[in-house]
Amino acid sequence: MKKTVAVLHGDGVGQEVTEAAVKVLQSVGRRFDHTFEVKKGLIGGIAIDQTGNPLPKETIEVCEKSDAVLLGAVGGPKWDQNPSALRPEKGLLEIRKHFGLFANLRPVKAVKGMSEASPLKDHLSKGVDMMIVRELTGGLYFGEPKRKTHNGAVDSLTYSREEIERIVEQGFELARLRKGKVTSVDKANVLETSKLWREVVEEKKAQYPDVEVEHLLVDAAAMKLITQPASFDVIVTENLFGDILSDEASVLTGSLGMLPSASIRSDGFGLYEPVHGSAPDIAGMNIANPSAAILSVAMMLKYSFGMETEAFAVETAVYSVFDDGYCTTDVQKSGHRVLTTSAFVEKVIEE
Amino acid sequence: MKKTVAVLHGDGVGQEVTEAAVKVLQSVGRRFDHTFEVKKGLIGGIAIDQTGNPLPKETIEVCEKSDAVLLGAVGGPKWDQNPSALRPEKGLLEIRKHFGLFANLRPVKAVKGMSEASPLKDHLSKGVDMMIVRELTGGLYFGEPKRKTHNGAVDSLTYSREEIERIVEQGFELARLRKGKVTSVDKANVLETSKLWREVVEEKKAQYPDVEVEHLLVDAAAMKLITQPASFDVIVTENLFGDILSDEASVLTGSLGMLPSASIRSDGFGLYEPVHGSAPDIAGMNIANPSAAILSVAMMLKYSFGMETEAFAVETAVYSVFDDGYCTTDVQKSGHRVLTTSAFVEKVIEE
Ligand SMILES: CC(C)[C@H](C(=O)O)[C@@H](O)C(=O)O
Ligand SMILES: CC(C)[C@H](C(=O)O)[C@@H](O)C(=O)O
Repeated sequence: MKKTVAVLHGDGVGQEVTEAAVKVLQSVGRRFDHTFEVKKGLIGGIAIDQTGNPLPKETIEVCEKSDAVLLGAVGGPKWDQNPSALRPEKGLLEIRKHFGLFANLRPVKAVKGMSEASPLKDHLSKGVDMMIVRELTGGLYFGEPKRKTHNGAVDSLTYSREEIERIVEQGFELARLRKGKVTSVDKANVLETSKLWREVVEEKKAQYPDVEVEHLLVDAAAMKLITQPASFDVIVTENLFGDILSDEASVLTGSLGMLPSASIRSDGFGLYEPVHGSAPDIAGMNIANPSAAILSVAMMLKYSFGMETEAFAVETAVYSVFDDGYCTTDVQKSGHRVLTTSAFVEKVIEE
Repeated sequence: MKKTVAVLHGDGVGQEVTEAAVKVLQSVGRRFDHTFEVKKGLIGGIAIDQTGNPLPKETIEVCEKSDAVLLGAVGGPKWDQNPSALRPEKGLLEIRKHFGLFANLRPVKAVKGMSEASPLKDHLSKGVDMMIVRELTGGLYFGEPKRKTHNGAVDSLTYSREEIERIVEQGFELARLRKGKVTSVDKANVLETSKLWREVVEEKKAQYPDVEVEHLLVDAAAMKLITQPASFDVIVTENLFGDILSDEASVLTGSLGMLPSASIRSDGFGLYEPVHGSAPDIAGMNIANPSAAILSVAMMLKYSFGMETEAFAVETAVYSVFDDGYCTTDVQKSGHRVLTTSAFVEKVIEE
C-alpha cells in the first residue's frame, strides 16, 4: 500500500521523537512492502515564530492531502504569555476541530516490569489495561456563548444528540474488540448534557448486547481510577471530563513517557501524538523517550491504515527493547542500560 | 456560649454517625461549659418518603434558626430511579444554594499509621496535608440556560467576578493560617471563566504577599495530586473541578472514612458533613466509622463557633483512639481492636 503521512513535529522534544517515529515507520514500509510518503508541516510555537499563526494554512493543506497526521508536541515557556490566539495549543484545538477528529483514544497499559515507576502500590497497578475514549470536538471547548459578560464570564457546555451518539458508538465498538466492558462517565445528577448522554448510552446498549455497561459519575470515576484501575476496560466520556480523567489515568502505571494517543473520525483519517508534552528542559539533547511517538505510529497503522499485523509488530518491538534490558533516562531501572533517543530507535528497528 | 445546631441525619449510616457526633458535641459542651441545643430536621431520601420533598420547608426553618448545620449523608438505591426533582441530592444542592454556602472546605490529611490503607506507595502518601477550597454555589451546577435543546442539551458555566473574588479570598485566608501556599486550579487555556478566574487570583495575590501562588491546569492538577500529593497546601478551584479533584484527593491517603467537610459563607454560618456517603449496605449495623462526622463537628466548632481549643481537643481525641490500638471495620489494621460505632464514640469521649 501507499500512504501519505503529514508530520508536524511542533516544539521541544516533538522534533526528535517524531523523527525517531518516522524512522520506525519507514522500516515498517521496507519490511512489509508499503510506501509511506512523509510531508512536513508547522504547528504550535514554531509555527507562530515562523508564520505568526499556530496552525498555518499550508499545514492544513498538507494534512488535507495526507492519509494521517503524526504530531510531536506543542508549547513551551517561550509562548506561555502570548494572548490566546497566539498560543501553541490553539493550533491543536483548531486542527481537531477543522478535521472533525471527534474521538480521542487514550490507551493506558501497565508495562511489564515498570511497576517500580508507578505511584500506586503494585497490587493496584498490576493488570491495568484501559482505553479512554474522549469526545474531542464538542462540549465546553467549543460551545457558544463563550465570552466575558458585563460582570463575569460564561462558557457553554453544549452537545447535540448526534455528537453523543457517534462517540458512544465508538466506545461500544472498541469495547467489543477488547474486554467487552464500557464505563460511561457523566455528571447526570447535575448536568442536562449528562442526562442526555446517559439516555443515549442506555439506548445504544440494546445494539451491543455483548458489551457490559456501567455508568459512573465523574467524581466517583476520579476515585475509582485510583482505587481499582484494573477494573476498567473502555471509558467513554465528554471532552473536559475526558481531558481530566485521561491525564489522571496517564500517571497511574508509571509509563507516561510511553503513552500514545489517536484523534480520529469515522472515515479512518486521524491524528496521532504522544501524550507527553514538549518537555523543553530536555529538548535537543537526544535523550527523550521516543516510545510514545513510536507507539502512536502503531496506532496510526492500526486505526488509519488497517494494518493490524504491522501495528502489532511495532508495539512488540518497543516492549521487547525494554524486556531486553534497555531503557531511556525517564524510565531508568536498576540493571537496565540507558539508551539515547537514536540508539533506542535502532534497537526498535532491529527488533 | 450557647449555640443551636440543626442536625439533619439523612439516609443510611447518616443516622448513626450524626448521633455519634452529637454525643461528642454534648460532651464538649459539658467539658468546656457551653450549651449546644440540637434541633432535628429531615433531608434527602427520608424527607422524600415522609414529605415528598428532599428539602422540606420545615427543615429550612430549623436551619434558619440555628447557628450551624450537621448533616449525615443523603441517597441510596431506593431513590436512584427517581426524577431529578425527587432525588436526595437535590436536597443537598438546594440547601447549599438557599443558604449561600459558597465555600466548601475539604481537608485531606494522611493519618499516622494508616498508610497501609492508601493506594499510593508510602513515600508518596507520607506528609499529605492539603485543604481543597471548592466554590459551591456557582458554575455549571446552577448556570442558566441549563436545558434540553431542539437537538441536544446545554449547561452553562457562569461566574461573576464577585463570586470568584470571595472564594479566592477564602483560599488565601486559609493558606495564611496553614503552610502559606495556594494552588489555583483552572482551565485557562480553554475557558473564558478560567481566564477571569486566573485574572482575579493574580489581582488578589498583591494583598497576600506572604502567600505563595501557583496556577495549575485542571488536567495537570489531576496528575500532580497522584504524583506529588504532599506538595499541596491549599487548592482553590471552581465548583465542578472541585467536585472531581476533592473526590480524587479523598482516596489518596486511605482515610476516606475519616474525612470531614465544611460548607460555609462569610458570616460563620455553615453546614458540616462527612465526605463518605450513606453506605446503605452497612446502615443500622452499628459498625460505621463515625470519625468523619465527629471531625465535621470539630470543623463546626472551629469555623462556625470560633472554638479553636475545643476543635483541637476533638481532633486529638479521634486520632488518639486510633493511636491507642483501636479501629473500626472500614480501617482495620493488624493488631488493632475493631470497635462498634457506639464503643468508638465512648472512647473518643473518654479521651
Ligand atoms: C492543550 C490543551 C488545550 C489540550 C486539551 O485540553 O484538550 C490538552 O490538555 C490535551 O489533552 O490534548
Ligand atoms: C451529590 C452531588 C450533587 C454532590 C456534588 O456534585 O456537589 C456531591 O458529589 C458532593 O460533592 O457533595
